[in-house]
Amino acid sequence: MWRKIMDALNPFEGNIFAGSHLDRAGNARRDPEWLATKLHGPAARFLPLWQLKAPIDPDAPSDLKWLGGTETRGHLDGTNAILLGIDPQGVPYFAFDAGGEGDASPFPGIQYEEVRSVAPNISRGDASLLAQARSLVDWHRRHGFCAVCGAPTRMADAGYVRRCSSAGCGAQHFPRTDPVVIMLIAHGDRCLVGRQRWFPNGFYSTLAGFMEPGESIEEAVRREVWEEAAIEVGEVRYHSSQPWPYPSSLMIGCIGEALTDQITIDRHELDDARWVARDAVRRAIDQVTAKTFDPFTEVAMPDEAGEFELMVPAPMAIAHQLMRAWVYPDAT
Amino acid sequence: MWRKIMDALNPFEGNIFAGSHLDRAGNARRDPEWLATKLHGPAARFLPLWQLKAPIDPDAPSDLKWLGGTETRGHLDGTNAILLGIDPQGVPYFAFDAGGEGDASPFPGIQYEEVRSVAPNISRGDASLLAQARSLVDWHRRHGFCAVCGAPTRMADAGYVRRCSSAGCGAQHFPRTDPVVIMLIAHGDRCLVGRQRWFPNGFYSTLAGFMEPGESIEEAVRREVWEEAAIEVGEVRYHSSQPWPYPSSLMIGCIGEALTDQITIDRHELDDARWVARDAVRRAIDQVTAKTFDPFTEVAMPDEAGEFELMVPAPMAIAHQLMRAWVYPDAT
Repeated sequence: MWRKIMDALNPFEGNIFAGSHLDRAGNARRDPEWLATKLHGPAARFLPLWQLKAPIDPDAPSDLKWLGGTETRGHLDGTNAILLGIDPQGVPYFAFDAGGEGDASPFPGIQYEEVRSVAPNISRGDASLLAQARSLVDWHRRHGFCAVCGAPTRMADAGYVRRCSSAGCGAQHFPRTDPVVIMLIAHGDRCLVGRQRWFPNGFYSTLAGFMEPGESIEEAVRREVWEEAAIEVGEVRYHSSQPWPYPSSLMIGCIGEALTDQITIDRHELDDARWVARDAVRRAIDQVTAKTFDPFTEVAMPDEAGEFELMVPAPMAIAHQLMRAWVYPDAT
Repeated sequence: MWRKIMDALNPFEGNIFAGSHLDRAGNARRDPEWLATKLHGPAARFLPLWQLKAPIDPDAPSDLKWLGGTETRGHLDGTNAILLGIDPQGVPYFAFDAGGEGDASPFPGIQYEEVRSVAPNISRGDASLLAQARSLVDWHRRHGFCAVCGAPTRMADAGYVRRCSSAGCGAQHFPRTDPVVIMLIAHGDRCLVGRQRWFPNGFYSTLAGFMEPGESIEEAVRREVWEEAAIEVGEVRYHSSQPWPYPSSLMIGCIGEALTDQITIDRHELDDARWVARDAVRRAIDQVTAKTFDPFTEVAMPDEAGEFELMVPAPMAIAHQLMRAWVYPDAT
């Protein structure tokens, strides 16, 4: 069964927040003249993020609310417009920071909602743009100063660089993309799951953690599982990846085989960790797939007998896809 | 043949700079008391990086030069010692910044050499520690100030955090690990290679580029190949990963199938890009495998007829391993 699962790992590209349909124009966007033409052209569309939230038209809640140049006049120029990309017809799409905590919402008639709550309800391409926009807006918010010398920095290259304003320094800073390993660890017919203290009752997910300098993906998987649960991991296989804009993670999903099964929980990181049977995971996967809620806001109730009823992340989470690949190896 | 190559992609973990034998002690290192005990204990060993270079004992050039507590007295405390990890006997290994440009080398009798020149000649575990050390020392050097507010930052948690010193801010900053996609793109019996202007004559490698917010690994592969060579890529498979400490990249190696073959070179990024035949790549792989030089310092001479003689990266580069997996699919 293990061999079958590992050998069946075909490329999976269905993770939400991936799947943009735009060309990022990585070369052209460095040219200020090209950028100005795109920014001030009549076709340009603009996505305001307010408090890092997604703009929605209350009358069309499955669409993002894009603004035109007339509505955004006075709000945007080459110093704060972030290019998301260009569509096949040449239409440029931009995002911008429309205000943070304490700022009033600037465009009447728009409703702002949490990016990960909106994402499952909009098109795959729009969800991807939203991830890109949220990560970049947040990065600019938190990088107004040069880490090298402390002087103010300025946005450049359509939002993909910040340059130090000090002539003596002039350092360039690029957006962060922080790789995180997230892994389904199996031992025979059981898999390892863990929970944070703030998870809803009964809710468990796969283990995960930030990569550190000087390690490969496979090593990071083994280190995290060792640190959090004291389980030794042997073979590790890549499954898929997912950009996760909270704030700028790249989730790297893997499936790995446990060599030991005695768990010691790291209480700094986890509230609980345990082995759960494949059947229980399959039931939980089936149950959550039928719903569309944000897995982090729904609270599971214990059943009448007060017994443990496993809940797992919804399909939008890569953890769900890893569990799915393990419980349904024939479906991949 | 394509199917065979893709299906034969087993986990490859032989990349240099991966393979540390130490426990990073990710939880314990946050405890200042634990850290002080390790730092001042008699067993502690210290790796000085001077100008980001590796310390070598001239009498034992295949070993790193570790110092003891006596030699480093006055140089180290909890504010500048970076914990690399603990070995199975409990011995702690630290790295520290022994000076930058303009600073005299502080420890007589040590020779300092470029990390990537030294790496192929030392043990796999030591090369990995060197990658970890170089990335972290460099990160601390370039992050003395808070990107959020501009105030000075201070090292904490044995080198894995910098904290803002301003009471009103207090932001925590974590070391960067920047994911880079690097890909062997094949079209039938040829693969796509490119060269930078500063590469030695005849030297080509696979294409590569930094990942951006809001994209998966597979999307980043397609975007980079599109931007640099205007080639469309279909199926993409993960091969292996490699930490690359210049300064803090995580190389994510993939093999992908080209859907088109008309190259348009992006002259901002590449000096040349071309399709090369499998036979030529195999010859170049065989030739370079027999050597141990740093691929970036050896200059290839054109042959007597002045014809194109392909040179490719040495085994220490993940690009070499991707090419090897493609020319020797049976060997994986």
